[in-house]
Amino acid sequence: MKIALLQMQPASGAPERNLETIEKAARSAAAFGADMLVTPELSLSGYALGADFAEIAEPLDGAMIGRLRQIAETVGIAIVAGFPERDGEHVFNSAAFVCADGTVQCYRKCHLYGEAEKAAFQPSDTKPAVFEFNSFRVGMLICFDVEFPEMTRGLALAGAELVIVPTALPSTADSPTISQHMIPTRALENHVFMVYADLCGTERHLTYFGGSVIAGPDGRELARAGRNEALLMAEIEHAVLESARAENPYLAERRPELYR
Amino acid sequence: MKIALLQMQPASGAPERNLETIEKAARSAAAFGADMLVTPELSLSGYALGADFAEIAEPLDGAMIGRLRQIAETVGIAIVAGFPERDGEHVFNSAAFVCADGTVQCYRKCHLYGEAEKAAFQPSDTKPAVFEFNSFRVGMLICFDVEFPEMTRGLALAGAELVIVPTALPSTADSPTISQHMIPTRALENHVFMVYADLCGTERHLTYFGGSVIAGPDGRELARAGRNEALLMAEIEHAVLESARAENPYLAERRPELYR
Repeated sequence: MKIALLQMQPASGAPERNLETIEKAARSAAAFGADMLVTPELSLSGYALGADFAEIAEPLDGAMIGRLRQIAETVGIAIVAGFPERDGEHVFNSAAFVCADGTVQCYRKCHLYGEAEKAAFQPSDTKPAVFEFNSFRVGMLICFDVEFPEMTRGLALAGAELVIVPTALPSTADSPTISQHMIPTRALENHVFMVYADLCGTERHLTYFGGSVIAGPDGRELARAGRNEALLMAEIEHAVLESARAENPYLAERRPELYR
Repeated sequence: MKIALLQMQPASGAPERNLETIEKAARSAAAFGADMLVTPELSLSGYALGADFAEIAEPLDGAMIGRLRQIAETVGIAIVAGFPERDGEHVFNSAAFVCADGTVQCYRKCHLYGEAEKAAFQPSDTKPAVFEFNSFRVGMLICFDVEFPEMTRGLALAGAELVIVPTALPSTADSPTISQHMIPTRALENHVFMVYADLCGTERHLTYFGGSVIAGPDGRELARAGRNEALLMAEIEHAVLESARAENPYLAERRPELYR
């Protein structure tokens, strides 16, 4: 399966402009034969909206995701995009996985980062699900979630082979460790492919790190972005999963009775 | 507290020679003011002994650790060293933490790596303990243990601030990811200091990776070795623990109810 990853500068509070950017990337990715395009956390709305999320949020069957589904269908590619999801009184920080055949999966962020997110969003109380796409078992996390080793581990134990992580990693002292060390570690220690898609540039008061990466179950990087807008494409193969798991059977050699 | 780390070429099956090497490093470390010297997995015996471990193994109160305690006392420094530990019919892959005042802590490896280790050793069924040394709460793991994120996490949840990992990392395709990415990740995601002390050189059929490292709770490296014998020394400070934990309270923001 061929994966495309868009590291994008968000248009703050302007879903139509973000959808245009994503459509352009989707057409480019499809032209190179990609089966899936992964975009960052809150890629449809922008991330630095503070109190404005309540206004811009829409349900999964609203116009934003409706337009995303049209793009996926027209271009013939699956698209993962982050959006503020309204569900009654609550707003979740969500990511939709929209297939070309019209099916949709949705993940809601479990670990909210910092005061701004906690003020804007409801944390999800639901474990991330594993679903099948193009013969790969897929799970999703969002940004801060992946910094807790238990989350990727949970997906791997539930059978995930590919973990998709839309993110909005700000540029701080910790960000190089997360992008360059933690993501390849998650891939190796769980023997999964990791797709970590970050925002880039500056949005209002926030500057993003960039550093999006696709890493394989052997811990090696298949593609890495710098700090600017970038489109990465890489082929992922079942054979690499099998050889990594045969070399070093981490999941089989766990000793849960010794874990706190 | 100042930590010294010896990346050493083992003398295979020759504890007296390894003890000489360790004593020399201990004197050097003490001369620079180090409080503790950490040496690799099975540093007293050598690692590539196969069936010979049964013969060379000794109890914690045997001659090998007795000699190590003498060195610690004479030089006035705590020393961590790996040794094959006999306990009745069983042999464990253990690490002794020997203080200058004569007190000893011992950890037995829980996750045995590969067929050779499984043939030579009994895996421990006991969770690693946390103990205090020089006002730091300390835990120990051995080599393969640290590749399971649950183990360092368990120590951090039990209060560890410093995790000591004697290791014998062979030079394989995975070793750069483990030394360069995983160890700093363990440090950051758990907000602990990691001391990862590897063997080096070639012993019988095995070539070690080297790549020993001391990493801080902010994910940054305090010292790193290349592939040859090396003695690293670095100061670790409570203030770095506190600032890392304040910046990003990973342990406090865990959501165990969502973890499988």
